[in-house]
Amino acid sequence: MDVRVSPEAGMRELWPDVSRAGCPSRVVLEHVTSRWGVLVLIALLGRSYRFSELRRKVGGVSEKMLAQTLQALERDGFVHRDAKPVIPPRVDYSLTPMGHEVAGRVWELTRWVESSLDEVFEARDAYDAARES
Amino acid sequence: MDVRVSPEAGMRELWPDVSRAGCPSRVVLEHVTSRWGVLVLIALLGRSYRFSELRRKVGGVSEKMLAQTLQALERDGFVHRDAKPVIPPRVDYSLTPMGHEVAGRVWELTRWVESSLDEVFEARDAYDAARES
Repeated sequence: MDVRVSPEAGMRELWPDVSRAGCPSRVVLEHVTSRWGVLVLIALLGRSYRFSELRRKVGGVSEKMLAQTLQALERDGFVHRDAKPVIPPRVDYSLTPMGHEVAGRVWELTRWVESSLDEVFEARDAYDAARES
Repeated sequence: MDVRVSPEAGMRELWPDVSRAGCPSRVVLEHVTSRWGVLVLIALLGRSYRFSELRRKVGGVSEKMLAQTLQALERDGFVHRDAKPVIPPRVDYSLTPMGHEVAGRVWELTRWVESSLDEVFEARDAYDAARES
């Protein structure tokens, strides 16, 4: 008899709600909104990448953090890892259909943040000035 | 002569790009995608909250983390803090128009994650099974 129980088993029965402590949706949300998760998803929205290419694309990421990020996104079903049986080994990373859906939403958010940066700077200047006076 | 220079001054001249290490858009993105940032934004999308109400709404947040999160979001111009001159003191938090825009995008992402949780669980089961065999 197969009685493996995942740590999330009890929570799987509840309606997902990120506002509830312990809801497993929080972990998934963290994978796609972590600094490197965001940047990997939006890079792969453009095209597939090899590991070393992706590391150059995602400014500042370490080899270890990139590997961890890709593994979490692969396990969640967002990233497809394609290891080609060639010499030297070649591994390509791309988005799955589900990964494409989430990456599109993350992309919308990042584009909005980039385009609103001047307004954020103005708000910060006003906030800081009000506290200096 | 006013020669105050912010730490981001040099970066402010470049076109924002979250993929570039050091781009200030990364910090803003972190404020709106941090665990508590996300949950505060989507709570305030519904209505304004007093601090203690918000703490109950956002499951698991500590008083200190909620205060830090609200302060960062207020300084970035996303949250409005309204301290009413009454006894006992009453402070309400609400979204600014800019906060409403970003919260809407964050909300889209969280709803998508919640609604895709079953598919993520299936992907994880398949991933783990492939590595057990």
